[in-house]
Amino acid sequence: MDITQEPTDVRDLPYSVFAKACPSRGTLEHVTGRWGGLTLGALYEGSLRFNELRRRVDGVSEKMLSQTLHALERDGLVHREAQPTNPPRVDYELTALGREIAERLLGLIHFVEGRMDDVLAARERYDGTRGAL
Amino acid sequence: MDITQEPTDVRDLPYSVFAKACPSRGTLEHVTGRWGGLTLGALYEGSLRFNELRRRVDGVSEKMLSQTLHALERDGLVHREAQPTNPPRVDYELTALGREIAERLLGLIHFVEGRMDDVLAARERYDGTRGAL
Repeated sequence: MDITQEPTDVRDLPYSVFAKACPSRGTLEHVTGRWGGLTLGALYEGSLRFNELRRRVDGVSEKMLSQTLHALERDGLVHREAQPTNPPRVDYELTALGREIAERLLGLIHFVEGRMDDVLAARERYDGTRGAL
Repeated sequence: MDITQEPTDVRDLPYSVFAKACPSRGTLEHVTGRWGGLTLGALYEGSLRFNELRRRVDGVSEKMLSQTLHALERDGLVHREAQPTNPPRVDYELTALGREIAERLLGLIHFVEGRMDDVLAARERYDGTRGAL
Protein backbone atom coordinates (compact mmCIF):
# COMPACT_ATOMS: atom_id res chain seq x y z
CA MET A 1 0.00 0.00 0.00
CA ASP A 2 1.22 3.45 -0.85
CA ILE A 3 2.23 5.00 2.45
CA THR A 4 2.17 8.60 1.29
CA GLN A 5 -1.49 8.39 0.40
CA GLU A 6 -4.27 6.31 1.93
CA PRO A 7 -6.76 6.50 -0.90
CA THR A 8 -9.91 4.82 0.32
CA ASP A 9 -10.03 4.60 4.07
CA VAL A 10 -10.38 8.02 5.61
CA ARG A 11 -12.10 7.12 8.84
CA ASP A 12 -10.82 8.91 11.91
CA LEU A 13 -10.67 5.96 14.28
CA PRO A 14 -7.25 5.30 15.78
CA TYR A 15 -7.86 1.55 15.49
CA SER A 16 -8.27 -0.36 12.25
CA VAL A 17 -8.68 -4.09 11.78
CA PHE A 18 -7.16 -3.66 8.33
CA ALA A 19 -3.76 -2.96 9.87
CA LYS A 20 -1.90 -6.14 10.70
CA ALA A 21 -0.46 -4.87 13.97
CA CYS A 22 -3.60 -3.19 15.32
CA PRO A 23 -4.90 -4.87 18.51
CA SER A 24 -8.46 -4.51 17.22
CA ARG A 25 -7.73 -7.29 14.76
CA GLY A 26 -7.08 -9.71 17.62
CA THR A 27 -10.26 -8.69 19.41
CA LEU A 28 -12.28 -9.06 16.23
CA GLU A 29 -10.87 -12.55 15.93
CA HIS A 30 -11.85 -13.40 19.50
CA VAL A 31 -15.35 -12.15 18.73
CA THR A 32 -15.82 -13.70 15.30
CA GLY A 33 -13.57 -16.74 15.55
CA ARG A 34 -15.19 -20.14 15.12
CA TRP A 35 -15.86 -20.61 18.83
CA GLY A 36 -15.80 -17.03 20.09
CA GLY A 37 -18.82 -16.03 18.06
CA LEU A 38 -20.87 -19.03 19.10
CA THR A 39 -19.87 -18.53 22.74
CA LEU A 40 -20.97 -14.88 22.72
CA GLY A 41 -24.18 -15.87 20.96
CA ALA A 42 -24.95 -18.59 23.50
CA LEU A 43 -24.26 -16.33 26.48
CA TYR A 44 -26.52 -13.65 25.02
CA GLU A 45 -29.46 -15.76 26.16
CA GLY A 46 -28.26 -15.75 29.75
CA SER A 47 -25.44 -16.89 32.02
CA LEU A 48 -24.31 -20.48 31.65
CA ARG A 49 -22.00 -22.89 33.39
CA PHE A 50 -19.04 -24.31 31.52
CA ASN A 51 -20.70 -27.62 30.70
CA GLU A 52 -23.98 -26.00 29.68
CA LEU A 53 -22.03 -23.76 27.36
CA ARG A 54 -20.16 -26.70 25.98
CA ARG A 55 -23.39 -28.49 25.09
CA ARG A 56 -24.82 -25.35 23.51
CA VAL A 57 -21.76 -24.72 21.34
CA ASP A 58 -22.09 -28.02 19.51
CA GLY A 59 -18.71 -29.50 18.61
CA VAL A 60 -16.38 -27.43 20.77
CA SER A 61 -13.74 -29.28 22.78
CA GLU A 62 -13.17 -28.57 26.45
CA LYS A 63 -9.77 -27.12 25.69
CA MET A 64 -10.98 -24.82 22.93
CA LEU A 65 -13.94 -23.56 24.96
CA SER A 66 -11.63 -22.86 27.87
CA GLN A 67 -9.21 -20.90 25.66
CA THR A 68 -12.10 -19.04 24.04
CA LEU A 69 -13.58 -18.00 27.38
CA HIS A 70 -10.14 -16.95 28.60
CA ALA A 71 -9.65 -14.61 25.62
CA LEU A 72 -13.15 -13.15 25.89
CA GLU A 73 -12.74 -12.61 29.63
CA ARG A 74 -9.40 -10.89 29.12
CA ASP A 75 -10.94 -8.57 26.52
CA GLY A 76 -13.64 -7.63 29.04
CA LEU A 77 -16.51 -9.23 27.11
CA VAL A 78 -17.27 -12.15 29.42
CA HIS A 79 -17.44 -12.17 33.20
CA ARG A 80 -16.47 -15.30 35.11
CA GLU A 81 -18.21 -15.72 38.44
CA ALA A 82 -17.00 -18.44 40.79
CA GLN A 83 -19.71 -19.29 43.34
CA PRO A 84 -18.41 -20.18 46.83
CA THR A 85 -20.25 -23.49 46.84
CA ASN A 86 -19.01 -27.00 47.33
CA PRO A 87 -18.34 -28.28 44.72
CA PRO A 88 -17.43 -24.85 43.29
CA ARG A 89 -19.71 -23.62 40.57
CA VAL A 90 -18.55 -21.23 37.88
CA ASP A 91 -20.94 -19.14 35.82
CA TYR A 92 -20.09 -17.21 32.69
CA GLU A 93 -22.03 -14.17 31.58
CA LEU A 94 -21.61 -11.30 29.16
CA THR A 95 -20.42 -7.93 30.38
CA ALA A 96 -22.25 -4.81 29.16
CA LEU A 97 -19.69 -4.42 26.37
CA GLY A 98 -19.89 -8.12 25.52
CA ARG A 99 -23.63 -7.76 25.26
CA GLU A 100 -23.40 -4.88 22.81
CA ILE A 101 -20.97 -6.82 20.68
CA ALA A 102 -23.03 -10.02 20.85
CA GLU A 103 -26.10 -8.08 19.72
CA ARG A 104 -24.38 -6.97 16.53
CA LEU A 105 -22.88 -10.38 15.98
CA LEU A 106 -26.26 -12.07 16.38
CA GLY A 107 -27.73 -9.62 13.88
CA LEU A 108 -25.15 -10.88 11.41
CA ILE A 109 -25.66 -14.54 12.37
CA HIS A 110 -29.42 -14.42 12.02
CA PHE A 111 -29.13 -12.63 8.71
CA VAL A 112 -26.78 -15.32 7.38
CA GLU A 113 -29.03 -18.11 8.68
CA GLY A 114 -32.01 -16.47 7.02
CA ARG A 115 -30.24 -16.32 3.64
CA MET A 116 -28.80 -19.83 3.57
CA ASP A 117 -31.21 -20.93 0.83
CA ASP A 118 -29.60 -18.32 -1.42
CA VAL A 119 -26.12 -19.36 -0.35
CA LEU A 120 -26.78 -23.03 -1.05
CA ALA A 121 -28.30 -22.18 -4.44
CA ALA A 122 -25.19 -20.14 -5.26
CA ARG A 123 -22.99 -23.07 -4.30
CA GLU A 124 -24.92 -25.38 -6.62
CA ARG A 125 -24.56 -22.93 -9.49
CA TYR A 126 -20.88 -22.49 -8.80
CA ASP A 127 -20.16 -26.20 -8.57
CA GLY A 128 -22.25 -26.78 -11.69
CA THR A 129 -20.32 -24.30 -13.83
CA ARG A 130 -17.07 -25.77 -12.62
CA GLY A 131 -18.14 -29.26 -13.66
CA ALA A 132 -19.06 -30.31 -10.11
CA LEU A 133 -15.54 -30.39 -8.67
CA MET B 1 -27.59 -31.66 13.63
CA ASP B 2 -29.63 -33.71 16.07
CA ILE B 3 -32.88 -34.27 14.26
CA THR B 4 -34.77 -35.92 17.10
CA GLN B 5 -34.42 -33.17 19.66
CA GLU B 6 -32.88 -29.73 19.72
CA PRO B 7 -33.32 -28.85 23.37
CA THR B 8 -32.47 -25.20 23.79
CA ASP B 9 -32.79 -23.48 20.47
CA VAL B 10 -36.41 -22.92 19.66
CA ARG B 11 -36.08 -20.38 16.90
CA ASP B 12 -38.02 -21.26 13.79
CA LEU B 13 -35.22 -20.89 11.27
CA PRO B 14 -34.31 -24.14 9.54
CA TYR B 15 -30.64 -23.20 9.80
CA SER B 16 -28.67 -22.71 12.99
CA VAL B 17 -24.98 -21.97 13.36
CA PHE B 18 -25.14 -23.62 16.77
CA ALA B 19 -25.58 -27.02 15.13
CA LYS B 20 -22.27 -28.55 14.13
CA ALA B 21 -23.51 -30.00 10.83
CA CYS B 22 -25.55 -27.00 9.67
CA PRO B 23 -24.11 -25.43 6.49
CA SER B 24 -24.76 -21.97 7.92
CA ARG B 25 -21.82 -22.53 10.26
CA GLY B 26 -19.48 -22.87 7.29
CA THR B 27 -20.83 -19.72 5.67
CA LEU B 28 -20.52 -17.78 8.91
CA GLU B 29 -16.91 -18.89 9.04
CA HIS B 30 -16.29 -17.72 5.49
CA VAL B 31 -17.81 -14.38 6.43
CA THR B 32 -16.18 -13.88 9.81
CA GLY B 33 -12.97 -15.85 9.37
CA ARG B 34 -9.72 -13.94 9.75
CA TRP B 35 -9.43 -13.12 6.05
CA GLY B 36 -13.04 -13.45 4.91
CA GLY B 37 -14.22 -10.60 7.08
CA LEU B 38 -11.46 -8.26 6.00
CA THR B 39 -12.01 -9.18 2.35
CA LEU B 40 -15.72 -8.42 2.53
CA GLY B 41 -14.95 -5.20 4.37
CA ALA B 42 -12.41 -4.11 1.76
CA LEU B 43 -14.72 -4.90 -1.16
CA TYR B 44 -17.53 -2.94 0.47
CA GLU B 45 -15.76 0.22 -0.65
CA GLY B 46 -15.79 -0.89 -4.30
CA SER B 47 -14.48 -3.52 -6.68
CA LEU B 48 -10.80 -4.34 -6.47
CA ARG B 49 -8.27 -6.38 -8.38
CA PHE B 50 -6.52 -9.24 -6.66
CA ASN B 51 -3.34 -7.32 -5.92
CA GLU B 52 -5.20 -4.24 -4.74
CA LEU B 53 -7.17 -6.44 -2.39
CA ARG B 54 -4.02 -8.09 -1.18
CA ARG B 55 -2.49 -4.74 -0.28
CA ARG B 56 -5.67 -3.64 1.49
CA VAL B 57 -5.96 -6.80 3.58
CA ASP B 58 -2.64 -6.24 5.29
CA GLY B 59 -0.82 -9.49 6.05
CA VAL B 60 -2.76 -11.94 3.89
CA SER B 61 -0.77 -14.34 1.72
CA GLU B 62 -1.57 -14.85 -1.94
CA LYS B 63 -2.69 -18.39 -1.25
CA MET B 64 -4.97 -17.48 1.64
CA LEU B 65 -6.56 -14.59 -0.25
CA SER B 66 -7.17 -16.85 -3.20
CA GLN B 67 -8.83 -19.50 -1.00
CA THR B 68 -10.87 -16.84 0.77
CA LEU B 69 -12.17 -15.36 -2.48
CA HIS B 70 -12.95 -18.83 -3.79
CA ALA B 71 -15.12 -19.63 -0.75
CA LEU B 72 -16.88 -16.26 -0.85
CA GLU B 73 -17.53 -16.58 -4.57
CA ARG B 74 -18.93 -20.08 -4.12
CA ASP B 75 -21.29 -18.83 -1.39
CA GLY B 76 -22.54 -16.15 -3.78
CA LEU B 77 -21.13 -13.21 -1.80
CA VAL B 78 -18.38 -12.13 -4.19
CA HIS B 79 -18.52 -11.84 -7.96
CA ARG B 80 -15.39 -12.46 -10.01
CA GLU B 81 -15.26 -10.60 -13.30
CA ALA B 82 -12.54 -11.48 -15.79
CA GLN B 83 -12.04 -8.65 -18.27
CA PRO B 84 -11.17 -9.76 -21.84
CA THR B 85 -8.05 -7.61 -21.92
CA ASN B 86 -4.48 -8.47 -22.60
CA PRO B 87 -3.06 -9.12 -20.05
CA PRO B 88 -6.30 -10.40 -18.52
CA ARG B 89 -7.63 -8.35 -15.66
CA VAL B 90 -9.78 -9.80 -12.91
CA ASP B 91 -12.00 -7.67 -10.72
CA TYR B 92 -13.72 -8.77 -7.55
CA GLU B 93 -16.87 -7.14 -6.25
CA LEU B 94 -19.59 -7.87 -3.75
CA THR B 95 -22.89 -9.34 -4.88
CA ALA B 96 -26.11 -7.83 -3.50
CA LEU B 97 -26.16 -10.49 -0.79
CA GLY B 98 -22.47 -10.00 -0.06
CA ARG B 99 -23.15 -6.31 0.35
CA GLU B 100 -25.90 -6.87 2.88
CA ILE B 101 -23.68 -9.19 4.85
CA ALA B 102 -20.68 -6.85 4.65
CA GLU B 103 -22.84 -4.01 5.97
CA ARG B 104 -23.68 -5.95 9.12
CA LEU B 105 -20.13 -7.14 9.50
CA LEU B 106 -18.75 -3.61 9.16
CA GLY B 107 -21.23 -2.46 11.80
CA LEU B 108 -19.66 -4.99 14.14
CA ILE B 109 -16.10 -4.13 13.06
CA HIS B 110 -16.55 -0.40 13.55
CA PHE B 111 -18.17 -0.97 16.91
CA VAL B 112 -15.24 -3.11 18.07
CA GLU B 113 -12.71 -0.58 16.75
CA GLY B 114 -14.57 2.17 18.57
CA ARG B 115 -14.41 0.31 21.89
CA MET B 116 -10.79 -0.82 21.78
CA ASP B 117 -9.81 1.58 24.58
CA ASP B 118 -12.18 -0.32 26.85
CA VAL B 119 -10.89 -3.66 25.63
CA LEU B 120 -7.26 -2.70 26.22
CA ALA B 121 -8.12 -1.38 29.69
CA ALA B 122 -9.84 -4.69 30.47
CA ARG B 123 -6.75 -6.58 29.35
CA GLU B 124 -4.55 -4.53 31.64
CA ARG B 125 -6.85 -5.18 34.59
CA TYR B 126 -6.99 -8.87 33.78
CA ASP B 127 -3.23 -9.26 33.41
CA GLY B 128 -2.73 -7.21 36.58
CA THR B 129 -4.93 -9.43 38.74
CA ARG B 130 -3.18 -12.50 37.37
CA GLY B 131 0.24 -11.14 38.35
CA ALA B 132 1.06 -10.01 34.80
CA LEU B 133 1.39 -13.45 33.26
